[in-house]
Amino acid sequence: MNKQTLIQVHERIKPFIHRTPVLTSELLNEISGAHVFFKCENFQKMGAFKMRGAANAILSLTDEERASGVVTHSSGNFAQAVSLASKKLGVKAYIVMPENAPQVKKDGVKTYEGEIIECPSTIEHRESAAKKIQKDKGATFLHPSNQDEVIYGQGTAAMELLEEQPDLDYIFTPVGGGGLLAGTALAAHHFSNHCKVIAGEPMEADDAYRSLLSGEIETNITSNTVADGLRTHLGDRNFPIIQKYVEKIIRVEEDEIINAMKLIWERMKLIIEPSSAVAFAALLRNKEDYKNKKVGIILSGGNVDLTRLPF
Amino acid sequence: MNKQTLIQVHERIKPFIHRTPVLTSELLNEISGAHVFFKCENFQKMGAFKMRGAANAILSLTDEERASGVVTHSSGNFAQAVSLASKKLGVKAYIVMPENAPQVKKDGVKTYEGEIIECPSTIEHRESAAKKIQKDKGATFLHPSNQDEVIYGQGTAAMELLEEQPDLDYIFTPVGGGGLLAGTALAAHHFSNHCKVIAGEPMEADDAYRSLLSGEIETNITSNTVADGLRTHLGDRNFPIIQKYVEKIIRVEEDEIINAMKLIWERMKLIIEPSSAVAFAALLRNKEDYKNKKVGIILSGGNVDLTRLPF
Repeated sequence: MNKQTLIQVHERIKPFIHRTPVLTSELLNEISGAHVFFKCENFQKMGAFKMRGAANAILSLTDEERASGVVTHSSGNFAQAVSLASKKLGVKAYIVMPENAPQVKKDGVKTYEGEIIECPSTIEHRESAAKKIQKDKGATFLHPSNQDEVIYGQGTAAMELLEEQPDLDYIFTPVGGGGLLAGTALAAHHFSNHCKVIAGEPMEADDAYRSLLSGEIETNITSNTVADGLRTHLGDRNFPIIQKYVEKIIRVEEDEIINAMKLIWERMKLIIEPSSAVAFAALLRNKEDYKNKKVGIILSGGNVDLTRLPF
Repeated sequence: MNKQTLIQVHERIKPFIHRTPVLTSELLNEISGAHVFFKCENFQKMGAFKMRGAANAILSLTDEERASGVVTHSSGNFAQAVSLASKKLGVKAYIVMPENAPQVKKDGVKTYEGEIIECPSTIEHRESAAKKIQKDKGATFLHPSNQDEVIYGQGTAAMELLEEQPDLDYIFTPVGGGGLLAGTALAAHHFSNHCKVIAGEPMEADDAYRSLLSGEIETNITSNTVADGLRTHLGDRNFPIIQKYVEKIIRVEEDEIINAMKLIWERMKLIIEPSSAVAFAALLRNKEDYKNKKVGIILSGGNVDLTRLPF
C-alpha cells in the first residue's frame, strides 16, 4: 500500500461521504493541557466513520460482484454503513443480525433498505448465516475491520484531519476491530512528518493491548464495557499494520470513558457514542505526556440510544 | 440604528466570541422539505448566543463604568454570559439569582467567577436586590433582552449566517425576551435583500404572539413550557423592532418542541436546549409554506441538564 492508493481511495469515496468538520474547545484544551483537534465523524453519514470503509469496499467491487450484492454480519454501525452505501450504489445488502439485536439497530438498517437475516446470537451462527448468503446469492462478504479496502477507507478520516492540521504531534483513535486504528496509522505514516498514532482501549476489552505485548492476536473472554463498539478483536490484515505503525495503546477504566464522554457532551455540545470517548479518555489519563502537544482525536461516531445514557 | 452600527458591534465583539459553524443535514432537509442552514450558537462560548449581547453591552461601557462592575438578575444563560464576558474584560459581575435556582446554574456562574447574590424567587425581590447593588456598588445594570447594546450583539449571529448564506429566504429564531428576535430582524433588514424573519414560540408562553396581535406588550399568567429560556416577555426596546421587521410568530405545542429537539439530537448529533428547538418546530409545523425555500435556523444554545431530558 502506498500513498497514491490512499489518495485514490479518498477521491473514490468523496461523493458518498461528508467531509466532517474539525472542532476545538478552549475548555477541553485547559482540562487536557494539550491543543486538541476533534475530527467529528459523529457527523458522518449514518453517524460514524464506518461509512468510509463500507463505501470504499463496495466501490472496489466489479460490476458483476455488485450485481450479486454484499453481505456482512454486524449489529452495529457497520451494518448501517453497508446498508446506506449499498443503497446509494444500487447494490443489494444482506445484513445478518442476531435475533436479540436491539430494535433501534434493526430500524437503522431498515431505514437504509438493508435486508435483515436473523439468526441465533452466537458468532458461529452469524458466520454460517453469512456463508449461506454468500453461497445462495453469490453475495460478496464485507468485513467490518479486517479487509484492506475497509482499512484504507477508514484512513481517509485522518487524511482529512492532517490536511487541516498538518503538524499534529499525535492522533488518538479508539481501537475495537482495528480497522480505524490501522487506517489512521497508514494515513499518518504517509501524510505527516512525525505524527504518532496512539489508541485508547477499554481495560474491560484490552485484547489489542495484549496483542501488541504478545505479538499474537488475542481475544477477550469477557468484554463488559460501555464502549459497545470496541468489544471485537484484531484481524490478520490490520494487526501487522498496527504492530508496525502504532506507537502505543493506552487502556482506560469505565469511569474514565464515561467522564470523557460527559465532558464532550457538556462542553462541546456534541453527541458521541461511548466508544468515541475512549480516545479522549486515553489522552486525559496520560495527559502529562502530551502537555502543549497538538493532538488530533477521531470522534468515531454518534449513534447512541438517548434513553439509555450512562450518566 | 444603521447598518454601520451592526458592523462596528460585530468587529468589537469578535475577539470575545466564536464564529460558530453553519451545519446542514440531508435528513432534516427531507423531513422539512426546505434547505435548512443551522447556525450553531450551541457551540458559542458558554453555550449560547447570549455571549454576543453580554460582550457588546460590557464593551460599550466607559472605563469608569467598567471599574464599578455590572449587575444582572437572571437564572439562565445571560447570567453565565455576563459572568464570562466580565471575566474576560476584567470587570466585576454581580449576578442576582433566586435562592432556589438549580445548583447547576449557580455552578455555571461560579465557573466564570461571577458573584452570586441570592434572594427570594419573586421578580420584585430580584429587581430590588439588583437595584441595591447598583446603588451600593455603582454597578451598571444589564438587561438580558431589552437593551440596545444587547439586541445589536445578538444580531451578529444572523449577520454571520447571512455572510455564509446571503440568499436565505427566511431566518427562524425562538422568541422569549425578544433580544435575539429583534437583533436578527435588524440584521436581516440591513444585510439581506429579501430575507424574512419568523419566530417560533411555545403555545404555553405565547405572549409575543399576542403582543403582535394587540399592539401592546403582553405577559404570561402561566408559562408551563419545557423551553425554559422562553418564559419571559418582550420589552419596550425590542417590541417596536419586532413589530416593524418580523414577518410572523408561529406557536408550537410542547410535543412539537420535544420532537424537534429529538430530531436535531438524533440526526445531527448536536446537543441543543429545548428553547433552541422551538424555531425548527415552527418550521416543521408550517412546512408546506416553506417547501424548497432556503431557511436559516438559529440554534440558540446547548445548556441542558443531561440528567433531566424531556425524552
